[in-house]
Amino acid sequence: MQIGILGASGYAGAELARILLSHPEPKKLHLSSVSFEGKPLEAVYPAFFRPRAGAEDKAAMTLKNADEVIEASQVLFSCLPHGHADQAAERCLAKGGLFIDISADFRFGDDEATFKKWYGKDYARPALHAEAVYGLPELNRAKIRKARLIGNPGCYPTSAELGLYPALAKGLADCESIVVDSASGVTGAGREPSQTTHFPDCSDAISPYKVGAHRHQPEIDRYLSAMAGEPVSCVFTPHLAPMNRGIVSTIYFRLKTPMDSAELRGLYASFYADEPFVRVLPEGSTASNRNVVFSNYCDLSVHLSSNGKTAIVVSTIDNMVKGAAGQAVQNMNLALGLEETAGLAMVPPAF
Amino acid sequence: MQIGILGASGYAGAELARILLSHPEPKKLHLSSVSFEGKPLEAVYPAFFRPRAGAEDKAAMTLKNADEVIEASQVLFSCLPHGHADQAAERCLAKGGLFIDISADFRFGDDEATFKKWYGKDYARPALHAEAVYGLPELNRAKIRKARLIGNPGCYPTSAELGLYPALAKGLADCESIVVDSASGVTGAGREPSQTTHFPDCSDAISPYKVGAHRHQPEIDRYLSAMAGEPVSCVFTPHLAPMNRGIVSTIYFRLKTPMDSAELRGLYASFYADEPFVRVLPEGSTASNRNVVFSNYCDLSVHLSSNGKTAIVVSTIDNMVKGAAGQAVQNMNLALGLEETAGLAMVPPAF
Amino acid sequence: MQIGILGASGYAGAELARILLSHPEPKKLHLSSVSFEGKPLEAVYPAFFRPRAGAEDKAAMTLKNADEVIEASQVLFSCLPHGHADQAAERCLAKGGLFIDISADFRFGDDEATFKKWYGKDYARPALHAEAVYGLPELNRAKIRKARLIGNPGCYPTSAELGLYPALAKGLADCESIVVDSASGVTGAGREPSQTTHFPDCSDAISPYKVGAHRHQPEIDRYLSAMAGEPVSCVFTPHLAPMNRGIVSTIYFRLKTPMDSAELRGLYASFYADEPFVRVLPEGSTASNRNVVFSNYCDLSVHLSSNGKTAIVVSTIDNMVKGAAGQAVQNMNLALGLEETAGLAMVPPAF
Amino acid sequence: MQIGILGASGYAGAELARILLSHPEPKKLHLSSVSFEGKPLEAVYPAFFRPRAGAEDKAAMTLKNADEVIEASQVLFSCLPHGHADQAAERCLAKGGLFIDISADFRFGDDEATFKKWYGKDYARPALHAEAVYGLPELNRAKIRKARLIGNPGCYPTSAELGLYPALAKGLADCESIVVDSASGVTGAGREPSQTTHFPDCSDAISPYKVGAHRHQPEIDRYLSAMAGEPVSCVFTPHLAPMNRGIVSTIYFRLKTPMDSAELRGLYASFYADEPFVRVLPEGSTASNRNVVFSNYCDLSVHLSSNGKTAIVVSTIDNMVKGAAGQAVQNMNLALGLEETAGLAMVPPAF
Repeated sequence: MQIGILGASGYAGAELARILLSHPEPKKLHLSSVSFEGKPLEAVYPAFFRPRAGAEDKAAMTLKNADEVIEASQVLFSCLPHGHADQAAERCLAKGGLFIDISADFRFGDDEATFKKWYGKDYARPALHAEAVYGLPELNRAKIRKARLIGNPGCYPTSAELGLYPALAKGLADCESIVVDSASGVTGAGREPSQTTHFPDCSDAISPYKVGAHRHQPEIDRYLSAMAGEPVSCVFTPHLAPMNRGIVSTIYFRLKTPMDSAELRGLYASFYADEPFVRVLPEGSTASNRNVVFSNYCDLSVHLSSNGKTAIVVSTIDNMVKGAAGQAVQNMNLALGLEETAGLAMVPPAF
Repeated sequence: MQIGILGASGYAGAELARILLSHPEPKKLHLSSVSFEGKPLEAVYPAFFRPRAGAEDKAAMTLKNADEVIEASQVLFSCLPHGHADQAAERCLAKGGLFIDISADFRFGDDEATFKKWYGKDYARPALHAEAVYGLPELNRAKIRKARLIGNPGCYPTSAELGLYPALAKGLADCESIVVDSASGVTGAGREPSQTTHFPDCSDAISPYKVGAHRHQPEIDRYLSAMAGEPVSCVFTPHLAPMNRGIVSTIYFRLKTPMDSAELRGLYASFYADEPFVRVLPEGSTASNRNVVFSNYCDLSVHLSSNGKTAIVVSTIDNMVKGAAGQAVQNMNLALGLEETAGLAMVPPAF
Repeated sequence: MQIGILGASGYAGAELARILLSHPEPKKLHLSSVSFEGKPLEAVYPAFFRPRAGAEDKAAMTLKNADEVIEASQVLFSCLPHGHADQAAERCLAKGGLFIDISADFRFGDDEATFKKWYGKDYARPALHAEAVYGLPELNRAKIRKARLIGNPGCYPTSAELGLYPALAKGLADCESIVVDSASGVTGAGREPSQTTHFPDCSDAISPYKVGAHRHQPEIDRYLSAMAGEPVSCVFTPHLAPMNRGIVSTIYFRLKTPMDSAELRGLYASFYADEPFVRVLPEGSTASNRNVVFSNYCDLSVHLSSNGKTAIVVSTIDNMVKGAAGQAVQNMNLALGLEETAGLAMVPPAF
Repeated sequence: MQIGILGASGYAGAELARILLSHPEPKKLHLSSVSFEGKPLEAVYPAFFRPRAGAEDKAAMTLKNADEVIEASQVLFSCLPHGHADQAAERCLAKGGLFIDISADFRFGDDEATFKKWYGKDYARPALHAEAVYGLPELNRAKIRKARLIGNPGCYPTSAELGLYPALAKGLADCESIVVDSASGVTGAGREPSQTTHFPDCSDAISPYKVGAHRHQPEIDRYLSAMAGEPVSCVFTPHLAPMNRGIVSTIYFRLKTPMDSAELRGLYASFYADEPFVRVLPEGSTASNRNVVFSNYCDLSVHLSSNGKTAIVVSTIDNMVKGAAGQAVQNMNLALGLEETAGLAMVPPAF
């Protein structure tokens, strides 16, 4: 299998490379980078250093230009910045390949207006967007199995949507009342240094940002609406937290009909009973990113407010795995007809 | 001035000692501790080490038993565990002293039922509770000036109540819709080690806890109700965050009447225009504990959700200062007729 | 393969369980715990939660008593506190099993005096100690392949010994001049909470401890002496650092004969050319635990002081992997004749 | 008093502003910044936000250009990058002012060659350099009292020099054997973001850097030599640690004559008996930056290696206070004939 990663020197790309290197399927990697073309990936991330690698292995881990990688690959992951995927997608599909995009480009289907409003770009190839499948396997597994072009979900949206899907699908939630309060580790901001990711600025601090104005909001609303079968406009606030990996979304919604927490938890557990990467925690446990980082799991814990009227669901993922690279590999597995969990069966570290 | 601190070896007590040592009023400290009686405070917290202290200074910083401290003090701060303050309060008041309690004992006024439900204790001296003033200066300044017995607010409640007071006082908020999502630094759990405060458990993680069941909830509800003039039962979720100091509460409420964010921010700024320790941030700024730790400030930033229906207020304090020891000193200043900001005018560190 | 872990609820035991679950060899685990007997490992570490585990899998991950585990196992790892391994070792060997001890019990060979001085215990079964092989594969690979009883090295000693082995074996170092200055992540202190591992005590701080008096010092000296062929008594200072995983040892020694850093680095690279888990970094790179955590690698970077007289070697490992559980699995692989890297080929995360 | 700070938007400048705002002497501040000219300091550091500041206060905290500040000031602190201080110094001295430079420009006296080698610049005004006094009060108090021009020491040098001064002054140390192994918080790298200070790069990691090649080495050697009365060339290794503030230097030297640790500690304690900002810890205590951050203290603990031949001194400061802004204010106090501790008497936080 010839697998390409466009933008492999960014965080999502490097995490993809790491996961794919442990994937059981025989494969050859092809990595591109604009900033580090010609250098080995280990020059960017010394963790990848392999003093005893052979010539072929070394070549595979050298960052090339995008054209070479597109040319060489049957499966192509794009980790390019928003607005840059569609040309590569077209070329990949033309060769009969599978294209999985980690950016936001293919998450909005034919709704060009929303994409343009939040990302400031037109659709150059509208047919591609119309064809693209939103790569949330728990929602779209059947479509993903048949897809050639997959838009991998955003990290916050993955946590929010998985936390709300059972409630919306079962009609339990007052859709006017949904609040998603999320905290993310700093890797979510990518590899590029900035003032907000400067250690003295973000350590020891919880900093809400883009309050009422984050680009993941319309993505979340789009898929919550699909799940609910009615328009949903939730309130979403992201926070930057002093940790590397993980998103913890604490989600609130009013129950249409009162129920106790055991019943609600039971509904969630049944809903996700066959999902390999969703763990509904037992009573007495509260989800924390501590238990999912470096894995493809989404952990959910289900609670009620003290007055019993509001459900509180804690949904947590590793933003780089289930929130990006791991979910992309899960999508690849589905689209290629492989075991869905192949390469993703890692037990998360206990500490 | 003879000032006593009961329970000075705990975090709130030590922080009180630190603030009082820099307080401009001439004073003598008297510190008690059960666990470390007879030892100097610096044996517990080496930060207090003073190799050149004279004999009197050394005596002042030696931990005594509670009786000695009660006896010696005109102003008595109690940092004892919940349920232990009332006997000391009685003795202090009998001598004509001022008693300020950092525990929850005097936060519920005559509502013994609620206190008992959440803290598991009866009121042994109900008259004291009836007399006690809730020490939130922004709400109760006039009463605090005349008080002999003050129940210092909890840390989460301080952030939640200051974040909601303008909206409730002005009747802007749908009181059924209030969500308070809070993250606290680990000092909030006190000096005693436990599994949840063990570094490998709490570093790199955001962990919600006591979801729907935290003891600060009834305190918050009590004072939100007072502010609103109607019963309020909010939804409150605390999270443990990997930082030492600070609480960040992200507060959500539906607006009864739509208004734009500038108007709402303006209302908040006017409401707190004369408050020395509340800072309503200008447009474009979002509150973060980064900017208030080691100070007595509460920073507030005011936002709207993307659909304009929900207000989002970020309220942040240092849990050990405005959330405990600093607010207690502010209360002391008021009750003694001193300058309200005396000993509290520190500029917070920029990093 | 029937594999037992005594003391599986501690950090080393849980990390062993995690690594062994991904080990390619077919196996069955047997876990013991005194504190959590009868509970599943996931009750201690929710990361292990498997909502879809079958009955047999659940049974394997339930913590039993030590006797059951000893009985059931052919390969037995002991993660018991110091001084408790030898009875289990005797029973294991009597059945023809392989015993690998993570404690200090079998690190001192027949030198009972040193063990007793530092660990306060006699040898109850001296013959076992005489037989035990010190499990540092880079030093003792041939012996480990034939061993029945292996004393797994300490975490600090692993980093110090690998950082000094080439210099001592080649006779480059003035053995009177060796300084090992090490920083460890907090997982090195184990799962049990204490004041020093309380988040507010150890976050934001570098704290040297047991200066001149740490129990890893005699272990380091013993094996440095073996490497050098002369008695070595180094200066060793451990520091607690605000991170979870990793040891960084900065090692200093005077060169007997001046050489430039390229030559010294070349000697190190040649010395370790065939070692699967030692990476000598190229010029311009400096080792950091960032690049080895969650892997079995030891990264080494080689430098000279500004005056050229002193070599500075930075040696870094994951204290829980190469410093404990990973090295134990490496030893098991060797002793069982498996591929040395089996179950240990993980690429360390780039971030 | 008219006090100017050139480069007030950097970390040292902002910390100076913070300390000076609490200084008891009546004063007016004048702040300059190239990057933020015309903006208030609170636009760079929201911690400084003062919603109720009057017009004069607001003007004082607005960042001006350097010329205005030089013009307006009697006392001028320069926090400009290395190589930019001497023109401002000349103008300040010409007006009869006091000039205190936080950069390296005036730390090397008339040794232009060393300065040029490490900082790449010539001396444009050699007479100024010849006049400048190195602002380590414990070494140079008498000279500082009479100085017009002070070169404030580097952060690592302050910790190293104070840790070695008693041993060198008393002739206890083998000067060939000195090793200084230092860890610094990330604020030491300044406000400017970079890859090394990007949270995901530096959190959870200890990273040695510029091994054998750091510019503080020649500064340390220069003043150790002055203390010893003979040329000293130490081995110095800095490490970046995942914390904001503080330097911990673990210092090693062979004792010329054996002595026990109590004797050595006693010598240190006597040597610094009258120093207001040096605390020699009692037996059983080990220095940690935990106990000095946000204060002007240097804490020292004195130990011996297990074989008794090597002294180990742990020396810790807040890199931004005693290592920069606090020491600069201490120097100002001395040079102006004020109380040496004025504005610096803060008790460090216990947590």
